[in-house]
Amino acid sequence: MDYIGTIHSPFTSLADMPVQPKGAAEKTGTVIIDRCYQEGLRDLEGFSHIYLIYHFHKASRTKLSVTPFLDTTSRGVFATRSPLRPNHIGLSVVELVAREENVLTIKGLDILDGTPLLDIKPYIEAFDAVEKSRSGWFTGTGATVRNARSDTRFT
Amino acid sequence: MDYIGTIHSPFTSLADMPVQPKGAAEKTGTVIIDRCYQEGLRDLEGFSHIYLIYHFHKASRTKLSVTPFLDTTSRGVFATRSPLRPNHIGLSVVELVAREENVLTIKGLDILDGTPLLDIKPYIEAFDAVEKSRSGWFTGTGATVRNARSDTRFT
Repeated sequence: MDYIGTIHSPFTSLADMPVQPKGAAEKTGTVIIDRCYQEGLRDLEGFSHIYLIYHFHKASRTKLSVTPFLDTTSRGVFATRSPLRPNHIGLSVVELVAREENVLTIKGLDILDGTPLLDIKPYIEAFDAVEKSRSGWFTGTGATVRNARSDTRFT
Repeated sequence: MDYIGTIHSPFTSLADMPVQPKGAAEKTGTVIIDRCYQEGLRDLEGFSHIYLIYHFHKASRTKLSVTPFLDTTSRGVFATRSPLRPNHIGLSVVELVAREENVLTIKGLDILDGTPLLDIKPYIEAFDAVEKSRSGWFTGTGATVRNARSDTRFT
């Protein structure tokens, strides 16, 4: 895997960071893609939302059971979004505000400043929208997510 | 990156495969997770939908401009879901029907049989639902996606 760029955000420390994009709906950041991949960004600006797939580069270990930020019970790591998964891959859906050459302006990001990027995919409603779902242990609401903040337990 | 398991599907050839999970809503497959990671699956069965992050292992090259299955115009690869991206990472949201120990039964999969798995994440509506979005070059409908089939252009 090669890094294709870097995510820049207002969050320079894991302590007190939003735990999900919806906790940072008004926070703006940028993604700077390596110039050698710029051609691959053509047409991306037509999409209002994109998936960022990135490397949780501050996660240095794996735990198969973790207690998520939004819960008080230990859960299997694949039933959570914790960084301490076997492959330290992160996934966020963010709003794409603009693209200028190799720079994306994004909104609603829950990602640490300096995070290396692995991939970008367009969010396409006809592929990706889930009409009705059941969210297991997560019994919170949008407000729970908006107000939750991280700490350093997952480094 | 280590493979954490393997995806088994009815699709043994890239020719004539659905191009997105919504093209295979009634197709059932299984994900077999390596036993050493089984503990990490605890509580996953509470979720009706999961993200599978996998390796497009049949993609052997990178193209920064591609013509998607659902379009007739060349687009930047990051504005598409083509496998020929710099890192050959695939992402699908699928329905989780059941978990039995290290085996997941899933529905609505658009993934080639034998595909190696990198990560599983729960789909959590409060994190992931996008209320209103704009899908760029993709002007089709759900029916377009359901009826589209792949070919071997992306190997």
